[in-house]
Amino acid sequence: MTTNNQTIYYTLTDEAPSLATCSLLPIVRTFTAAAGINVKITDISLAGRILANFPDFLTEEQQVKDGLAFLGELTQDPNANIIKLPNISASVPQLTACIAELQGQGYKLPDFPQDPQNDEEKAINERYSKILGSAVNPVLREGNSDRRAPKAVKNFARKFPHSMGKWSMASRTHADYMRGGDFYSKEQSFTMPTEGDVRIEFVDADGKVTLKKKLHLEAGEIMDSMCMSVKALREFLEATMNDAKEDGVLWSLHVKATMMKVSHPIVFGHAVTVYYKEVFEKWGELFDKLGVNPKNGLIDVYDKVETLPRSKREEIHRDILATYEHRPHMAMVDSYKGITNLHVPSDVIVDASMPAMIRNGGKMWGGDGKPADCKAVMPESTYAKIYQEMINFCKTNGAFDPTTMGTVPNVGLMAKKAEEYGSHDKTYELEEAGTMRVVDSKGNVLMSHDVEEGDIWRACQTKDEPVRDWVKLAVTRARQSDTPAIFWLDRNRPHDIELIKKVNCYLQEHDLEGLDIRINTYEEAIRRSMERMLRGRDTISVTGNVLRDYLTDLFPIMELGTSAKMLSIVPMLKGGGMYETGAGGSAPKHVQQVIEENHLRWDSLGEFLALAVSLEDMGIKQDNKRAAVLANCLDAATEKLLDNNKSPSRKVGELDNRGSHFYLGMYWAQEVAAQTEDPELAADLADFAKALTENEEKIIGELSDDQGHPVKEVEFGYYHAKRDVIKDIMRPSKTLNAILADANS
Amino acid sequence: MTTNNQTIYYTLTDEAPSLATCSLLPIVRTFTAAAGINVKITDISLAGRILANFPDFLTEEQQVKDGLAFLGELTQDPNANIIKLPNISASVPQLTACIAELQGQGYKLPDFPQDPQNDEEKAINERYSKILGSAVNPVLREGNSDRRAPKAVKNFARKFPHSMGKWSMASRTHADYMRGGDFYSKEQSFTMPTEGDVRIEFVDADGKVTLKKKLHLEAGEIMDSMCMSVKALREFLEATMNDAKEDGVLWSLHVKATMMKVSHPIVFGHAVTVYYKEVFEKWGELFDKLGVNPKNGLIDVYDKVETLPRSKREEIHRDILATYEHRPHMAMVDSYKGITNLHVPSDVIVDASMPAMIRNGGKMWGGDGKPADCKAVMPESTYAKIYQEMINFCKTNGAFDPTTMGTVPNVGLMAKKAEEYGSHDKTYELEEAGTMRVVDSKGNVLMSHDVEEGDIWRACQTKDEPVRDWVKLAVTRARQSDTPAIFWLDRNRPHDIELIKKVNCYLQEHDLEGLDIRINTYEEAIRRSMERMLRGRDTISVTGNVLRDYLTDLFPIMELGTSAKMLSIVPMLKGGGMYETGAGGSAPKHVQQVIEENHLRWDSLGEFLALAVSLEDMGIKQDNKRAAVLANCLDAATEKLLDNNKSPSRKVGELDNRGSHFYLGMYWAQEVAAQTEDPELAADLADFAKALTENEEKIIGELSDDQGHPVKEVEFGYYHAKRDVIKDIMRPSKTLNAILADANS
Repeated sequence: MTTNNQTIYYTLTDEAPSLATCSLLPIVRTFTAAAGINVKITDISLAGRILANFPDFLTEEQQVKDGLAFLGELTQDPNANIIKLPNISASVPQLTACIAELQGQGYKLPDFPQDPQNDEEKAINERYSKILGSAVNPVLREGNSDRRAPKAVKNFARKFPHSMGKWSMASRTHADYMRGGDFYSKEQSFTMPTEGDVRIEFVDADGKVTLKKKLHLEAGEIMDSMCMSVKALREFLEATMNDAKEDGVLWSLHVKATMMKVSHPIVFGHAVTVYYKEVFEKWGELFDKLGVNPKNGLIDVYDKVETLPRSKREEIHRDILATYEHRPHMAMVDSYKGITNLHVPSDVIVDASMPAMIRNGGKMWGGDGKPADCKAVMPESTYAKIYQEMINFCKTNGAFDPTTMGTVPNVGLMAKKAEEYGSHDKTYELEEAGTMRVVDSKGNVLMSHDVEEGDIWRACQTKDEPVRDWVKLAVTRARQSDTPAIFWLDRNRPHDIELIKKVNCYLQEHDLEGLDIRINTYEEAIRRSMERMLRGRDTISVTGNVLRDYLTDLFPIMELGTSAKMLSIVPMLKGGGMYETGAGGSAPKHVQQVIEENHLRWDSLGEFLALAVSLEDMGIKQDNKRAAVLANCLDAATEKLLDNNKSPSRKVGELDNRGSHFYLGMYWAQEVAAQTEDPELAADLADFAKALTENEEKIIGELSDDQGHPVKEVEFGYYHAKRDVIKDIMRPSKTLNAILADANS
Repeated sequence: MTTNNQTIYYTLTDEAPSLATCSLLPIVRTFTAAAGINVKITDISLAGRILANFPDFLTEEQQVKDGLAFLGELTQDPNANIIKLPNISASVPQLTACIAELQGQGYKLPDFPQDPQNDEEKAINERYSKILGSAVNPVLREGNSDRRAPKAVKNFARKFPHSMGKWSMASRTHADYMRGGDFYSKEQSFTMPTEGDVRIEFVDADGKVTLKKKLHLEAGEIMDSMCMSVKALREFLEATMNDAKEDGVLWSLHVKATMMKVSHPIVFGHAVTVYYKEVFEKWGELFDKLGVNPKNGLIDVYDKVETLPRSKREEIHRDILATYEHRPHMAMVDSYKGITNLHVPSDVIVDASMPAMIRNGGKMWGGDGKPADCKAVMPESTYAKIYQEMINFCKTNGAFDPTTMGTVPNVGLMAKKAEEYGSHDKTYELEEAGTMRVVDSKGNVLMSHDVEEGDIWRACQTKDEPVRDWVKLAVTRARQSDTPAIFWLDRNRPHDIELIKKVNCYLQEHDLEGLDIRINTYEEAIRRSMERMLRGRDTISVTGNVLRDYLTDLFPIMELGTSAKMLSIVPMLKGGGMYETGAGGSAPKHVQQVIEENHLRWDSLGEFLALAVSLEDMGIKQDNKRAAVLANCLDAATEKLLDNNKSPSRKVGELDNRGSHFYLGMYWAQEVAAQTEDPELAADLADFAKALTENEEKIIGELSDDQGHPVKEVEFGYYHAKRDVIKDIMRPSKTLNAILADANS
């Protein structure tokens, strides 16, 4: 496919981000037009994706282009420049609601057949299923990951630091992890010399072979297998509980049940059945009959016993409560509601919960609602060590200081489902003792683990091309930012040993003169990064996919108080760039406030940041010098916006998203008008800057006038609102609209 | 001077080591004779040194050669090969007793005039003063330091590990140190471009200059100055006490009041007056009148108030006790006797007390006699960080395991009083505010510190030649032992920055091919060393003089349970070698046991080890192949001796020093007879080996016969016993004596 090289593809998504887009884009286009750049909207909203997948049910006028498919193709274009806003990863209730809304608007879409009864329904179910869940990222993330704290955000945190809990040198808090028998200590790895098939097989005690899965590996592809001994795991869990009890610290479990979505829920389940050992021993048979699944947490016990007669149910409840008498106190997710760490597996996700605890002076909340030191238990040791390092570091040096600390950006290996990212379809909980092995087409056993019943075995793949690109990205970032880079690779770990070979090989493809690029173990790497950070120095972390995920929460939460303000770039394998913005987690609540109060508190900071790097990239790749000037000015404007506290307020009547956009536009225009690098551009936008500046008070007044009054949902829509209705709501300032029209005339 | 290149100079010292020499040397000489090596005794005993310094008071027959002066000259000989046993660093009472003993033996020595009244007495006092204190080491240590755990000793510790306390991950123990205002943070340093004089000056508030000291610096000599703010120190001490109280941990102070013999007692004094703040506030005037000196510890208060009337004294005692009500519990030196950490400054010497605490699972002893977690306070941060690193490491990885851990030998910069070793003569406690500065002969101010009243300022020197030699020694040791080496130098510290320049320069003088030599900060260095140690790997620590002192206790105490079994070599600047043996601390007690029970429990392990390296060196430098064979066989014999538990027992009736020597001789002879590298040598000593082996039981019997009976002190002497009397006592086995005579005939 061919694209106009001077085009930025801006995604239209859902909820608050899509509302914000309506207000922001007209402002943005005034600038980009001056640089000859076209900003094109591509609809990848849930509603848009539904409509695109059912043209045969729609009138010709109702049919829409498939935006996601278009962008999917675009990722293969070296000129691709995509700004990706948060979208809905639809759950079934969201899907159903969206269909209903569209049907109400006259789209004759079929219902979603949750339990399809015939071939026709099955076909429809299948079409809808492609839209469910995380359907967008796998299509668009055709590259590795470049995440960093933008300068403006970092400067803001330095000037207006977030709160940090105090660390005591005598804190008892620590991270504990298995010292043997876990995935880390049982890893095996190999690199395919030439492309070929491999089989994952199970061999039982009698030598009977069962094929688990067949895979085709590319030449140079790394494959790993790891195994967790359930016996070692349960012994470890029991020991940690005894230690926590003896030491008088809270016991808490931190796993990654979402990303490691098969293996870690199993680990979580063992924690539940070890902690509540007596309960599960006494009621085991009944629980089996009721279908209690400890992988879903203690909550599953409470749910399933609901059907029992009251006396039995209460006996079980009493037995659960009795457990707390002899087990260590547990860290609570919600001490007021009595929700412990073991209630729901997704409640304590290590990459979020550990930074929160460290930021909080090493304390979690006990059942008494008070903060207390804790034993953070992370059975899989692979990456757990970095948290213990940071805990030791904070005990020694005190809490990090956001006003002086350096930054740790990340270059993450992510492309083509590298590493553990895609391992869940190759994860097995063994039903009997035997041997798990990986065999090539000639019958050579490439990897082999003796396993016991209940052991967890998993494999993952890393293709060569993403690694080569990742090394290149690391060198590029080190060069561009003049910052030392560390490859976080453990020379004692089989998978990393294979990766280190590739890294050393591909590093030679680059000019390394004057760069400081090292390969360090995770412990060495985090230590060096923290020591530099303490002195205000920056260090790029170059990591695999899981550490990417961990570190882009861990460091930002220390540095910025949140990971939502990070710049997230996916430089695509084929040369294009995707710029991700913000985090969508709270978007539905934001829409609710617009409907009730006509106040949009969505912060478009992520869009500002993404747009700046998108323009910067345009400047470099398309040699568009004006784009480069615009990028610099936008960054300066963003910093001014932060400094002057012109981000949206949470409260109605104060500045909201629309007003924030105005200020961004005004500051940006002022910066462009004031810069001297491109005097023509400055002249082009001088009137625009002047008009915005002179009408600040008037525009802000107009933008605020309607606030406080409810927006009628009926005319608003939720998943598929009419664009002109939204336009009325999101662009209420006649003065601003006139200035924009004038500037673009 | 010229020496016979095939001579080992073996020092005759004092007390137990000198007794042991009488038994050991005849055995040793049987071996060395076979290699054409002469082992010559040089008397550097206290009595010997006295006699050598007063020839004019003695008859011609009584006069002796000055052994120490001889060895002092010998250190300048490239062929020097000296085995140095522990000697008495005489205190005044020891000196006086020795003089009396000699006078009793007919030596007409003058008494020691402690308070000389006329010129004659002053002259005599001066002559004796040269013999007092640490008079031997400064003369002989004409080189840097090479300390390591000999293979035999390391293997023994692996097979028979000493006990190690358990570390809890939740331990509250930590090391705390100043984060500003201390010596480390205020260091300045420069390197003299050409030789010249510098002046240490104090400039008062009115600009009046006082010369403190004049120094002549060599070209390339590094000079540093450091300053400790007494205000910052006292605030820090107060904060640590409050923290310890709040955290419920023991408060303990760890300083180096012996080596840093001016600056650290001052720090100690501040700790006393901060902890007992109210006492010193209330009784300050009285204490001044009584001459209470807090630098000498709380004990000085107790001593000085003894003269007061009982009621006043008891009031002071009560006030001291009242302090404990609101201050943190203190770590005790002797909880039974109520001796706290603040009683005596030399009681808690950081290099010994911190390893002991770490070996004990991070616990010290509280006033209740129970072990407890503690806050180890080391105000000067310079090297304190390494202890916090080790504490963090033990919390994370558990106690070290002597059966598997690697070893950390040391190459220490020591020659020509390098670094802090000699800084006490350039340390000042400022009496008023002003400026301390170092000025060159042209009046250029090279270093300058603003100081307040009470601040501590100190300077130290490091000559170029020792640094160059130290780098060479590090490379040599790395090459010879095929072990990675780390220079522990802090790239953020002015003194180390100067040293790093020299190291980088002098490293280029050597072939570094295949060697792993790095420069790391103290924290990085200890971390890397510990991580390697955990995996059973060895790492040479290449350090300055103070870290040499700290590390050669710290690692040996973890690895071997004691630092007394370390091999201590001083490869001298001029090319010769000095081999130090053991530690003399308990030697007087050993002599007492000989007098009472005729049992010598002195362990000559240090001599065995030193002799082996002395022979090894002879093998290399004098190309004496037999010496090399003897060295290898001696090491093997020592290992066998350890394995077979043939070291001296502490109990009378069991094997003592003499029996241990016999076994060493027997094993050594067996090894020589069995080796095939030098068949002639094997043949030469075959009969000797056979005779010893066949007569084992008989000889051991003869050696034990006299045990249990007291030796008469009168015929024994203490400082200057008659050699023939000692010979009777130390060589009681007629069979062994006959075999030795036969072998040497």
